[in-house]
Amino acid sequence: MDGYPQVVTRYSTISFLSDFGHADEFVGVVHSVIRSIAPEAAVVDVTHGIRPHDVRAGALALARSAQYLCPGVVLAVVDPGVGTDRRAVAIEVGEGASVLVGPDNGLLASAVAMVGGASRAVELAAPELQLPRIGSTFDGRDVFAPAAAHIANGVDLADFGPVIDAASLMPGLLPVIGVEDGGLMVEVLWIDHYGNVQLNIGAEDLAEWGDPVSLIVGDHRETIARRGAYRDISSGEVGAVIDSTGLVSLAVNGGSAAEKLHISASDELRIEKIDGPPPQSTAVTLGRMQ
Amino acid sequence: MDGYPQVVTRYSTISFLSDFGHADEFVGVVHSVIRSIAPEAAVVDVTHGIRPHDVRAGALALARSAQYLCPGVVLAVVDPGVGTDRRAVAIEVGEGASVLVGPDNGLLASAVAMVGGASRAVELAAPELQLPRIGSTFDGRDVFAPAAAHIANGVDLADFGPVIDAASLMPGLLPVIGVEDGGLMVEVLWIDHYGNVQLNIGAEDLAEWGDPVSLIVGDHRETIARRGAYRDISSGEVGAVIDSTGLVSLAVNGGSAAEKLHISASDELRIEKIDGPPPQSTAVTLGRMQ
Amino acid sequence: MDGYPQVVTRYSTISFLSDFGHADEFVGVVHSVIRSIAPEAAVVDVTHGIRPHDVRAGALALARSAQYLCPGVVLAVVDPGVGTDRRAVAIEVGEGASVLVGPDNGLLASAVAMVGGASRAVELAAPELQLPRIGSTFDGRDVFAPAAAHIANGVDLADFGPVIDAASLMPGLLPVIGVEDGGLMVEVLWIDHYGNVQLNIGAEDLAEWGDPVSLIVGDHRETIARRGAYRDISSGEVGAVIDSTGLVSLAVNGGSAAEKLHISASDELRIEKIDGPPPQSTAVTLGRMQ
Repeated sequence: MDGYPQVVTRYSTISFLSDFGHADEFVGVVHSVIRSIAPEAAVVDVTHGIRPHDVRAGALALARSAQYLCPGVVLAVVDPGVGTDRRAVAIEVGEGASVLVGPDNGLLASAVAMVGGASRAVELAAPELQLPRIGSTFDGRDVFAPAAAHIANGVDLADFGPVIDAASLMPGLLPVIGVEDGGLMVEVLWIDHYGNVQLNIGAEDLAEWGDPVSLIVGDHRETIARRGAYRDISSGEVGAVIDSTGLVSLAVNGGSAAEKLHISASDELRIEKIDGPPPQSTAVTLGRMQ
Repeated sequence: MDGYPQVVTRYSTISFLSDFGHADEFVGVVHSVIRSIAPEAAVVDVTHGIRPHDVRAGALALARSAQYLCPGVVLAVVDPGVGTDRRAVAIEVGEGASVLVGPDNGLLASAVAMVGGASRAVELAAPELQLPRIGSTFDGRDVFAPAAAHIANGVDLADFGPVIDAASLMPGLLPVIGVEDGGLMVEVLWIDHYGNVQLNIGAEDLAEWGDPVSLIVGDHRETIARRGAYRDISSGEVGAVIDSTGLVSLAVNGGSAAEKLHISASDELRIEKIDGPPPQSTAVTLGRMQ
Repeated sequence: MDGYPQVVTRYSTISFLSDFGHADEFVGVVHSVIRSIAPEAAVVDVTHGIRPHDVRAGALALARSAQYLCPGVVLAVVDPGVGTDRRAVAIEVGEGASVLVGPDNGLLASAVAMVGGASRAVELAAPELQLPRIGSTFDGRDVFAPAAAHIANGVDLADFGPVIDAASLMPGLLPVIGVEDGGLMVEVLWIDHYGNVQLNIGAEDLAEWGDPVSLIVGDHRETIARRGAYRDISSGEVGAVIDSTGLVSLAVNGGSAAEKLHISASDELRIEKIDGPPPQSTAVTLGRMQ
């Protein structure tokens, strides 16, 4: 600008997460659109198995993955509001280390917070950086994929549309925990492919309630002991292990704890001491997911 | 050729669609075979979630994707007739812009038609451009993947086998619609991952029947209004949106229209005016899928 | 080494198999970790659809794929014993042609045997070649992926940890067949995506029992004729075809033989002659899977 060459930041990796599933060609079409625009960029599929429309599950998966993703562009699409006036956005983090692209519906919020917050954000508005829209139902193809590819190519965020105040971005829904009537109320963040049940507490939160603890799921009460590995859980027992994100997961050796305990994502569970008075603390931390 | 150097056309992208699913190693073995022969080519997975043996569903997915795929080789395998005398073919389109490789069973026909028809076609017969066959059940690995890779490397179609008259290629099955007894008979082309129900009509076809219209599914009658986005569909309602291919899709906000209406792919449905006489027109177009 | 430059072997392909599924971000995180360490290496996903914890199914899928994989690193993770003292290993085969990385639980054994056995093996112990572990449940991310990437980059196996005697590696479980009371006892190795039922016998093993043969599944008896292709199987019939690994598979034309016969992987079935005395031979081979 004014004779000074602009520094162009290119990105070699686009990490891609969605609820598109693998039954249809949605993922493949997005890959094709990206490759048409940015043939040098590598696309890493984070997952496309997010439950349809489940923005919260997508946000949690992105937050769990964030620290392992390659610096670059992160394209995330779980977008039940597609076609409405919800904003399409690009959010720069780490002073340009990475850029997250997706709908402004809370999907990106936790991941952005985990890496230190937004250093810049814009609305994806410029039609010349989008595909001609057919219908209004596939912004992944028509808006987000072209944006991710152009950003990988070095197009500046400012070219996409008006700057957004980062404070106006939709925040993530943070699950809360707390002590109630002498029990610890916790929330199920995630049921993984194996049936492990991730809770929104860390090892130290659980330790305050003894070992083993009593877990209440609806009308059912189960004794849960802390175990070092899945294989250390006895047959017929449900154990508590520290999982790969540092949170407490309920697990069954070689089976599904979710199935055994009839637990679904977002369920609220209750933990109690097996005997003795409950802990006095009321401030409870969220562990690494905070 | 008589001293003139032959122009070699290489392709950097192989777009790959199949009904192989992700439970087994079929897709991975095809990728490995391609990479062994053409390590420079990038393979883009369009989808492998086509219902087993469903040539029609594969043809429709390919037609929906076609305009977004990178120029290059398109490898498509939905092949219930593997091991019989159905032909294995390579079809050049756009005077060499792309080459489609797969079984001659109608799978490729719609995509070929959408890009202007075949400019050349050959049968994949030359054994030296195939892998030694083990069994007769996996031509994806033994015939089609090596062909796609060799074509990407610049091997000329003429080297694969005898030229085929394009008119002799198996045509695609085109769903038909028509007016019957004052109602519009339509066919379900596709149920997507979200449960949206794609019909074989465009916006203008539907408009002739008013807004809302009456939809008859077996014994059930449902009132369907045109909506601009999934989110604009009221709770409990089934709406009609223009989907990402330009056709009419029945949808439920945050849920599955297919489940709600008990609709499957290939079902025939009936649309009627809610009141007043039916449209007089009898010639109905197929929209973009024609 | 005393002034002599060490020859560095780099690998351009990492073939990756697991039971991680596609519902979560496990596969994507492993890809990201690999790309962070070895951005030049291409990752080919063999399959991630192995049934959770099913080491035997993973070993069989790897053995079926082995001869088609690109030379390089093979990363295989089906690891129900993660977090216990089961060893993490890297096994060199073909004097350095390829290196297999995974848990020492039998998963790698059949593939190693198929390519001529181990020429070197080490335990993955060096913490500086791993990620800092969070929890003890995701060695795919923290131990195996970094090892695969560093090996692709040319890090010598000796740097990872102590050399292991190849004879001490966990052997694969080889299914056995045999003649019992005038019938041939066979085992189901694999039910594929289409419902084809792979048996642990080759064409010549089956031929000894005539054509057609009688198949006994629990209380049910089915007549099975040898067919050249799926399409050659009559409607309502179950046929025996030679599948893409050279073994006998039971199949239904356009449908699932496993569903029709209520057969699961690992089931034991019995084959009998339809008439006449049984074969006298008792030594039966395993075909290509041996």
